Amino acid sequence: MKHLSLILIVFVMACSAKPEKAEELKSGPITLVIHGGAGTIRKANMTPEKEAAYHAALQQALDSGYAVLKRGGKSTDAVIAAIKILEDSPLFNAGKGAVFTNEEKNELDAAIMDGSNLMAGSVAGVTTIKNPITAAYAVMTKSEHVMMVGKGAEQFAQLNGIEIVDPSYFFDSARYKALLKAKQSEKDKAAMLYDPYTKDSKFGTVGAVALDQYGNLAAGTSTGGMTNKRFGRVGDAPIIGAGTYANNQTCAISATGWGEYFIRLNVAHDVAALKGYAGLTVQQAADSVVMKKLPALGGDGGIIALDRQGNFALTFCTEGMYRGYVNEKEGAKTFIYKD
Amino acid sequence: MKHLSLILIVFVMACSAKPEKAEELKSGPITLVIHGGAGTIRKANMTPEKEAAYHAALQQALDSGYAVLKRGGKSTDAVIAAIKILEDSPLFNAGKGAVFTNEEKNELDAAIMDGSNLMAGSVAGVTTIKNPITAAYAVMTKSEHVMMVGKGAEQFAQLNGIEIVDPSYFFDSARYKALLKAKQSEKDKAAMLYDPYTKDSKFGTVGAVALDQYGNLAAGTSTGGMTNKRFGRVGDAPIIGAGTYANNQTCAISATGWGEYFIRLNVAHDVAALKGYAGLTVQQAADSVVMKKLPALGGDGGIIALDRQGNFALTFCTEGMYRGYVNEKEGAKTFIYKD
Repeated sequence: MKHLSLILIVFVMACSAKPEKAEELKSGPITLVIHGGAGTIRKANMTPEKEAAYHAALQQALDSGYAVLKRGGKSTDAVIAAIKILEDSPLFNAGKGAVFTNEEKNELDAAIMDGSNLMAGSVAGVTTIKNPITAAYAVMTKSEHVMMVGKGAEQFAQLNGIEIVDPSYFFDSARYKALLKAKQSEKDKAAMLYDPYTKDSKFGTVGAVALDQYGNLAAGTSTGGMTNKRFGRVGDAPIIGAGTYANNQTCAISATGWGEYFIRLNVAHDVAALKGYAGLTVQQAADSVVMKKLPALGGDGGIIALDRQGNFALTFCTEGMYRGYVNEKEGAKTFIYKD
Repeated sequence: MKHLSLILIVFVMACSAKPEKAEELKSGPITLVIHGGAGTIRKANMTPEKEAAYHAALQQALDSGYAVLKRGGKSTDAVIAAIKILEDSPLFNAGKGAVFTNEEKNELDAAIMDGSNLMAGSVAGVTTIKNPITAAYAVMTKSEHVMMVGKGAEQFAQLNGIEIVDPSYFFDSARYKALLKAKQSEKDKAAMLYDPYTKDSKFGTVGAVALDQYGNLAAGTSTGGMTNKRFGRVGDAPIIGAGTYANNQTCAISATGWGEYFIRLNVAHDVAALKGYAGLTVQQAADSVVMKKLPALGGDGGIIALDRQGNFALTFCTEGMYRGYVNEKEGAKTFIYKD
């Protein structure tokens, strides 16, 4: 009798298992695309060791995220896995390697969006969260809100079991020296923005876009913002539609660059809108926004974009962008400079 | 000789005065459209006195903003003039009438955008700025940033001569009672969102869109957010592309509603994109986003939208929206319920 019940339960479970919808199976192969920031990245300023370290970190992020996709995981989980690796590396301006604010703090921003249901979460100005992308995911999945800032966001993260660290965890001597240099060259209010060194150093945002086997897109972005930033400045990374956006109907986008211009142009949503309403491909849409509109307004930076068929773009109008992608056809590839 | 020099200077000035471009003159008549929030606004719950008070406040806001446009002022200045009136009234959830957070504070958000150059400014989570819309304008015009939050934003505002008040200025006994009621009915985390009273009270955002005689559009939004809000929650009002957007190429939009849905749908930028890329009119674009996409996702609220030809929409999927418009052809009109 006991056995019969068990067989019956297994039978009922098997019958009620929802088959994949035909439409969902039409989507392209699992794909992960990442970036680690765009800017004036020159071969002349690099050492072979530094170059190798960047490639290795990007490769590790691709491996970590792709492993999630390969074992049938969700695109949101792949995005988180990839971004956590980049957040934990001191090489990128996110998490561990976040730049310093004018007040010599590290204030972190992150966002994530699920293209299957347009759910989104973001945090801004947090100083004690080890992996801000995980806090953004908690906001998306464990609250009715989309965006939380400052102490409130930290309190929410802590209540939801997100790993909290002492602010000293984010201390990095190279980043600290960059702040001192930025402050030194700051002759007036505008200097911090126009100084080439500072301008470069604000482009270290990291991000990922993924397509899983269920045909769902996701996008995530994480950053330490701008060296020497003041006044509770928030950039584009945690702004849904500016630095981060995902929609199965169009594409998933993560941006890196001069945040103010990305907000004013609604870069991420504009790329999606050009694909959805004007019929452009992801590459055409990315080119239109990043190579035309952005420089025309005086900004620069780059984006990664991925659609449901697995088409993707890695587009930047700066000298370089730390970036990479992985899919079954081409395997994993990482890049730093323009080809 | 002195007179000759003076005549010469005046002559040179007259000759160098830049004539209006032909394209600019093609734009429509000066127009101002405002809203004071959307929600379950029912005639049954109103008194004639309360109704008259709302109409009077909306009328005053229209008068104040339209006076700016009539004397040749800019659309950004008209937007600020109208919003300041609504912020100073206790009737609306912005400025003086802002709702209370869970911690019994008033945390205010505001944004402004100039459609002629895509400049934008916003503040979020400020507690001491009398008119947050003026602080957003200062961020836009006196900093290289777009968004500032919390104490940093307040510090920036104070440094730039924005009027600072003691947080007690925002105390309003009716709003405070609303918080107590919301807290009382809050049986679990989700209750604050699903309680009908609370749901209603989070829709009091105010906003304005304007078209000036130079053919330039502007949009602005200001809010106290959501009654009983926690964890540094930020809604759509200060998010460029979500609650506020302006672009001379398409239209100017200010939104009011359940902020999370407006962020996830990028409501303001989506309306502009539907006009710009899909060729819809402002009314069609507003209907598509507010009457279809928004309810389909489970959200509600409304928007005002205005294009460069003076075409405008006041669209909401709630029972009512405090709103009004003024132009030369029709004069000033104010409304509360559905027609």
